[in-house]
Amino acid sequence: MARNSFGNILRLTTYGESHGFSMGGILDGVPAGIEIDQDLIQQELDRRKPGQSSIVTQRKESDTIQIKSGIFEGKTTGMPIAFEIMNADQKSKDYSHIKNEFRPSHADFTYEKKFGHRDYRGGGRSSARETVSWVAAGAIAKQIIPFIKIKAFTFSVGKLSLDENHEYNLDQTESNIVRCPDQKLADEMIDYIKSIRKQGDTVGGQVKCIVENVPLGLGDPVFEKLHANLAKAMMSINAVKGFEYGSGFSGTEMLGSNHNDIFEKDGHTQTNYSGGIQGGISNGMPIYFKVAFKPVATLMTSQRSINNIHDTVEITGKGRHDPCVVPRAIPIVEAMTALVLADAYLSHKTTHI
Amino acid sequence: MARNSFGNILRLTTYGESHGFSMGGILDGVPAGIEIDQDLIQQELDRRKPGQSSIVTQRKESDTIQIKSGIFEGKTTGMPIAFEIMNADQKSKDYSHIKNEFRPSHADFTYEKKFGHRDYRGGGRSSARETVSWVAAGAIAKQIIPFIKIKAFTFSVGKLSLDENHEYNLDQTESNIVRCPDQKLADEMIDYIKSIRKQGDTVGGQVKCIVENVPLGLGDPVFEKLHANLAKAMMSINAVKGFEYGSGFSGTEMLGSNHNDIFEKDGHTQTNYSGGIQGGISNGMPIYFKVAFKPVATLMTSQRSINNIHDTVEITGKGRHDPCVVPRAIPIVEAMTALVLADAYLSHKTTHI
Amino acid sequence: MARNSFGNILRLTTYGESHGFSMGGILDGVPAGIEIDQDLIQQELDRRKPGQSSIVTQRKESDTIQIKSGIFEGKTTGMPIAFEIMNADQKSKDYSHIKNEFRPSHADFTYEKKFGHRDYRGGGRSSARETVSWVAAGAIAKQIIPFIKIKAFTFSVGKLSLDENHEYNLDQTESNIVRCPDQKLADEMIDYIKSIRKQGDTVGGQVKCIVENVPLGLGDPVFEKLHANLAKAMMSINAVKGFEYGSGFSGTEMLGSNHNDIFEKDGHTQTNYSGGIQGGISNGMPIYFKVAFKPVATLMTSQRSINNIHDTVEITGKGRHDPCVVPRAIPIVEAMTALVLADAYLSHKTTHI
Amino acid sequence: MARNSFGNILRLTTYGESHGFSMGGILDGVPAGIEIDQDLIQQELDRRKPGQSSIVTQRKESDTIQIKSGIFEGKTTGMPIAFEIMNADQKSKDYSHIKNEFRPSHADFTYEKKFGHRDYRGGGRSSARETVSWVAAGAIAKQIIPFIKIKAFTFSVGKLSLDENHEYNLDQTESNIVRCPDQKLADEMIDYIKSIRKQGDTVGGQVKCIVENVPLGLGDPVFEKLHANLAKAMMSINAVKGFEYGSGFSGTEMLGSNHNDIFEKDGHTQTNYSGGIQGGISNGMPIYFKVAFKPVATLMTSQRSINNIHDTVEITGKGRHDPCVVPRAIPIVEAMTALVLADAYLSHKTTHI
Repeated sequence: MARNSFGNILRLTTYGESHGFSMGGILDGVPAGIEIDQDLIQQELDRRKPGQSSIVTQRKESDTIQIKSGIFEGKTTGMPIAFEIMNADQKSKDYSHIKNEFRPSHADFTYEKKFGHRDYRGGGRSSARETVSWVAAGAIAKQIIPFIKIKAFTFSVGKLSLDENHEYNLDQTESNIVRCPDQKLADEMIDYIKSIRKQGDTVGGQVKCIVENVPLGLGDPVFEKLHANLAKAMMSINAVKGFEYGSGFSGTEMLGSNHNDIFEKDGHTQTNYSGGIQGGISNGMPIYFKVAFKPVATLMTSQRSINNIHDTVEITGKGRHDPCVVPRAIPIVEAMTALVLADAYLSHKTTHI
Repeated sequence: MARNSFGNILRLTTYGESHGFSMGGILDGVPAGIEIDQDLIQQELDRRKPGQSSIVTQRKESDTIQIKSGIFEGKTTGMPIAFEIMNADQKSKDYSHIKNEFRPSHADFTYEKKFGHRDYRGGGRSSARETVSWVAAGAIAKQIIPFIKIKAFTFSVGKLSLDENHEYNLDQTESNIVRCPDQKLADEMIDYIKSIRKQGDTVGGQVKCIVENVPLGLGDPVFEKLHANLAKAMMSINAVKGFEYGSGFSGTEMLGSNHNDIFEKDGHTQTNYSGGIQGGISNGMPIYFKVAFKPVATLMTSQRSINNIHDTVEITGKGRHDPCVVPRAIPIVEAMTALVLADAYLSHKTTHI
Repeated sequence: MARNSFGNILRLTTYGESHGFSMGGILDGVPAGIEIDQDLIQQELDRRKPGQSSIVTQRKESDTIQIKSGIFEGKTTGMPIAFEIMNADQKSKDYSHIKNEFRPSHADFTYEKKFGHRDYRGGGRSSARETVSWVAAGAIAKQIIPFIKIKAFTFSVGKLSLDENHEYNLDQTESNIVRCPDQKLADEMIDYIKSIRKQGDTVGGQVKCIVENVPLGLGDPVFEKLHANLAKAMMSINAVKGFEYGSGFSGTEMLGSNHNDIFEKDGHTQTNYSGGIQGGISNGMPIYFKVAFKPVATLMTSQRSINNIHDTVEITGKGRHDPCVVPRAIPIVEAMTALVLADAYLSHKTTHI
Repeated sequence: MARNSFGNILRLTTYGESHGFSMGGILDGVPAGIEIDQDLIQQELDRRKPGQSSIVTQRKESDTIQIKSGIFEGKTTGMPIAFEIMNADQKSKDYSHIKNEFRPSHADFTYEKKFGHRDYRGGGRSSARETVSWVAAGAIAKQIIPFIKIKAFTFSVGKLSLDENHEYNLDQTESNIVRCPDQKLADEMIDYIKSIRKQGDTVGGQVKCIVENVPLGLGDPVFEKLHANLAKAMMSINAVKGFEYGSGFSGTEMLGSNHNDIFEKDGHTQTNYSGGIQGGISNGMPIYFKVAFKPVATLMTSQRSINNIHDTVEITGKGRHDPCVVPRAIPIVEAMTALVLADAYLSHKTTHI
């Protein structure tokens, strides 16, 4: 089963609860002899960490990673790489009020009913704090396939959206705290998020990811299709409600005569409605996809709910939360993409003797 | 790896090429003692089979299933259930012209480049004929969890779409050949598909699926989330470009204060933007999701393409193809949903001693 | 779970009951572009098949294999290879007497108690007829790694045993029906088996397997050790009670100063108590191991037993059975060895970028 | 692949090198709501730890376990349980001499050749220090199935052996430092090990394990047979060369008429040559098996060997090592048995709806 594992050849297994001792994981299947720059791992964690800007949760975590195995004299040994990130700033008393109460659209209710016994503090294992381990593992995965360029960015916040058909300079993504490559729209998004937060409310948004320099041939028929694994990866991220790649939902309105990507003589295609994947296998064109995030469920206003004896209660969010999850989701989307691609890359090595 | 396997406890492994000897699979992990009605399996295959109406491919296949193991005296024995469906009406000569040519937006190019050696006839294993095995296995899965009601239907064809906010009588779905529960819209869709086919063109569409009577507690944190497995299942279906559940992409424009589903005292929620799943675990409300299908890549008009020595060629589709994949996708979406849910149902049995 | 699957990269999934419709399986993960000689597969099946000599069961099966997928124009395509072997000569009425009775030391009792509902005919899925699929898959695996030489032979029948320290000419193995490379001992074994059968009794024995030309580096720490996977493979064969490799059980009586294998300058070792594997990884020396088979449980004499209402009954074996399983086990041991080694070989390809 | 994972439903993934930062693992699939006594875990670790008596390695490790997740208010939550045991007393300088040298019958040579880059300190990941994590996980597994009694003991050291046919009082096992239930033989074994150590030599031995109160029905056909999983578990332990259960190798010399276990009316059998497992499924009788351990490869005398440029060198063991691995192997054998049985127990819950 391995409920807390992801990947086949390159396989991440994680543990940890939001207010437990620590978060961490074991990344198995990393090839031997790869030089690992631990600063790059920490940089990715810093991109994800709370408290990094005025529009994200103010929980303070240094999110310093400790690597415990699998790297020797700066290089991988082929042994599993274990890592740990401490939970330093958990304020569990912020959560004592929900010990017996179920926050709307959170996992409190379903965990309680399924498992009977749950760690309610900060949402326990259902918290997005879990993704700190994904980012750590993804930063290692990126170093397995350094030639592949993975670039995620904020595509929309609420109704404020980039233009699907415009090409943006993705080097601008990290130049603003909302991680949108259009500086003007970024400013609007930031203002909007701040106003939403002032209301004690939250808002959703979309992340787009473009992957370049993908070798031809990654992915496998029929149940290891590259895009199906990307979909599972993205849908595993907290608060995600949708995934589309290539032409996506809008492609359903197209005719085949427009949608088909005509080959150039060199094997590239004139258009790329396929999104870089045909029959589940990368075709060498850029892979691109979008991920839909719902508004964060924790509000700073009062909401009606029920408790575990099914009485009606009023809940007001305490704790520190993101008013919009999208800016911090960017490195998470990239990390999961890296894990999927590195796994497919290693798997492809077994296709021929 | 198990590239051609799907599921954990209930695990389907399939084989077969479109114009090979037969299609089939092995469904492992079926509990013992379940009465299997083989007519129900055949009914599902009949819902999927080619040639069933004027708007689908005219390939003639009886798609009669032969079960080879695992059922004794009408009941499952707990042993793997193997099954086979013959390829009777393959007209491989229709494909000799693409032996060395790559059809646009098909898997010809990527299979050739990845594997070097490919069965080009009818697309080989990349053909949607593969899904005949999924429907067979799904029809068994449905009988493991007969209390769960899975109802997929055509939500849109091109721009002809049902209304998201209207509730339809899903008993009407099978009353027309396009499988849309709104009879008037169904007629429009049918006319539209016929006109598209007359042009030698194809069109995309969306399938919606609503699942009722799902027990509370199915799905597992953090990499066996119920919706993540549904996403992988749907994205594995040929021609699928997107998946969303609950509020989906439109939820990204909402505020948390609107999106949160407020609990009633009995644990049900007033709204269901969560789509019946919270934290990856079913909450007892209906699960609903949408699946985006691109237009079929095979056109009956001429298209420019390249061959395997990268010369430019002209290709005109031969063979028999669906002008719109959506009507035949309905039983496929249901089957994969049944496989995911039955697997989660069995897995849940291990949550407590 | 995949209860009926074996292997990681190269993964065999099987189905079938002794007196069911057919036996078969799907071999997934076979690399593309490998030429497959189907005659070699049939030859292996013929080495295993019943009725081949006077000292094995007289059930008549041609055991002709039909391959259904994954091979095109004589070469593998990288797609799963499905195959089927018919059950032609099942005489299920031979088994109606055990419908409600449990044969001693068979799986009748445990299957009935575990599954509730069982196919009692010929032992159903607990029958060694299952291994016909393993031999078919193993014959494909051998063609993935043709440079590795796998040679199993009868080491002992009852107390008639080869000498551990003598080197035999393994080209002689197939020159007699008991498959023992010492012709004189082989004759004694044959006479002994015949006399045992005349008494309606059965006898056990040991199979030894020597594998040469194994590339250095197969196997993985810590839960994919090459010898641990060989052990699981061998212990999965019906009637097997023990496995040892290298110095095995007798090595427990040795001192380290004698047991250690001293390296020559070329990396070979002077002795090979390690059995060709150190730390779970092949070291380039021959791998050798022994497998212990108990006497077949079906006797042609009367035995006391119980039925499913726990009354005492007398059972006399009907059906056709082997008086000693060892001669027919030789190709089975080789096949499972080939599956383990080919899997480890493919897995090793992912150890380096 | 999951090279460093063991088990299906209950799945252990481990990491760590002998002289790395720490050892540890993640145990996934533990059911929710189980009370965990952490003292019992520490007790098992103490039974295994180095320095506990005069006949084992004098490396000093407190082997104190820290549990990081999955247990809340004393009970399991169904989330993965991560744990860590520090490497406190590694003396890596003891190993600088083997940085470029390959110790005979160790994994130095095969790791170097397979991975290219290896952590040579103390054998890195090939060290039996790894088993500290197995014992920790096994101690949790025991608490999932507290009704099953698992009792391993020293069966032989060199040629000093218990009598196969005598029944011993296993409550005596822990009363002496060699863990042999016959006090007189234990004293002889202790003296023998001491004399062997004085010579700078090592010796092998056998562990026997008896498991009582196993529920009927654990294990699955055909590739999850209970004894095949036990074999893989045992063969994964460092220095193990053989495994047998029930009648084992000696059963190969028996006739079926003696070997068959005749049923009593209550379903128990008069004899138990089957070793508590029939057709891969537990039959309710005690399970028993033996495990063969070779002599430890590290000697305190001088041995010839080669280095990584294939020159001849002389190696004398430094570091602290066990002269006989068997006494410390007892809790390891028990732990792996507990993991296999708890996994089979959970898996069995999916056999029926």
